[in-house]
Amino acid sequence: MSELTELIERVNGFAAERDWDQFHSPKNLSMALIAEAAELVEHFQWLTEQQSYELPEDKLEQVRLELADIFVYLLRISEKLGVNLMQAAHQKISLNEQKYPADQVKGSSKKYHEYKAKSR
Amino acid sequence: MSELTELIERVNGFAAERDWDQFHSPKNLSMALIAEAAELVEHFQWLTEQQSYELPEDKLEQVRLELADIFVYLLRISEKLGVNLMQAAHQKISLNEQKYPADQVKGSSKKYHEYKAKSR
Amino acid sequence: MSELTELIERVNGFAAERDWDQFHSPKNLSMALIAEAAELVEHFQWLTEQQSYELPEDKLEQVRLELADIFVYLLRISEKLGVNLMQAAHQKISLNEQKYPADQVKGSSKKYHEYKAKSR
Amino acid sequence: MSELTELIERVNGFAAERDWDQFHSPKNLSMALIAEAAELVEHFQWLTEQQSYELPEDKLEQVRLELADIFVYLLRISEKLGVNLMQAAHQKISLNEQKYPADQVKGSSKKYHEYKAKSR
Repeated sequence: MSELTELIERVNGFAAERDWDQFHSPKNLSMALIAEAAELVEHFQWLTEQQSYELPEDKLEQVRLELADIFVYLLRISEKLGVNLMQAAHQKISLNEQKYPADQVKGSSKKYHEYKAKSR
Repeated sequence: MSELTELIERVNGFAAERDWDQFHSPKNLSMALIAEAAELVEHFQWLTEQQSYELPEDKLEQVRLELADIFVYLLRISEKLGVNLMQAAHQKISLNEQKYPADQVKGSSKKYHEYKAKSR
Repeated sequence: MSELTELIERVNGFAAERDWDQFHSPKNLSMALIAEAAELVEHFQWLTEQQSYELPEDKLEQVRLELADIFVYLLRISEKLGVNLMQAAHQKISLNEQKYPADQVKGSSKKYHEYKAKSR
Repeated sequence: MSELTELIERVNGFAAERDWDQFHSPKNLSMALIAEAAELVEHFQWLTEQQSYELPEDKLEQVRLELADIFVYLLRISEKLGVNLMQAAHQKISLNEQKYPADQVKGSSKKYHEYKAKSR
């Protein structure tokens, strides 16, 4: 069993044992996921970019567990929707490689965020 | 090489080839991640919970790629902070198992969301 | 002095007295605002739509103060960017009135969320 | 009629004319609000704090309309929940004034974000 499948099974089991599936509609899970993403944002909102690279030990540990929370909800909603996250991620990167060819966007005068804006 | 490590290397390579690391402070990445999480929320905001289980084909494909976007940024920020996502997720589930013992929370009269609220 | 101007002055004074302007770049304020928006989402994520209309007294009071937090940050970032919120809101509604003429979208077979999706 | 009441009536009328109230449960509105807050975050995610103070004309206009969107949803959800936004905002500032007395937090060695963290 792959490490990801093992984690997915553990995540699913946790919810099933507690009879919490009833609350886990994709709609609700999308809300829970963004709430966790905001917990992450909160840790960085008053820091400079430089400070965000140099988190003290205790802060890094909190951030680590927020990343875990986001990952768990991401796996949960993927399972509910029948989405293979690994496949989807690889496919998205391939799409981005075509959209932003390295030789064209690297060192270009166009700002990075203009490329990102065009991906919407 | 594990499948996750392979994906992480591909994600890192994609950014490096384009010289985009300069924009990828953890602070900025937390913003990019929540922006993607909101793209996901947008797909569900006017749907009922039931409808969110039954997405039409084209909508499901869009949602699938949003999940991919979230996953890619999650991997990126984890790498920048030196966080092992798999380990962190397993640790978080263990913490939750202790906090919410299945025999105590299952079928309890206490609403699910009161348990979740206490996890803050 | 209009009630909004009075509130804006109070919000600005609060930050100035504490010497907190240094942290209030529009970038940082956008992060603080979304963090508050997520606090609001958290109150509703495990509730049904119906339950969200019928909040118990204590929950409604918490939600009320979250709405206040969002409003305060919204005023703060508008001030920092020189944006007149009232004018902007009226302009946006006028734009939406043209985009979604009432006689065309009302009772139409097209779902509401398709109209909203087109507004991006 | 106060300017805020006038705007609220216009916002309510817009939705009623289009028969969109059916989609505007507080739960759904909290999702729509955070989606708009994320549209705002996206404009800033790759900018430095300094750049966020100096937006070019066209970018500032887009941000201005995002702020309007957030404001409109904030008013909408406040109306649905019977919350007086102005009162709530004034009350929240008063609470914060007591929590963070200016003479204690100004120029203190404690970082601003530690104060903000304690407000959760």
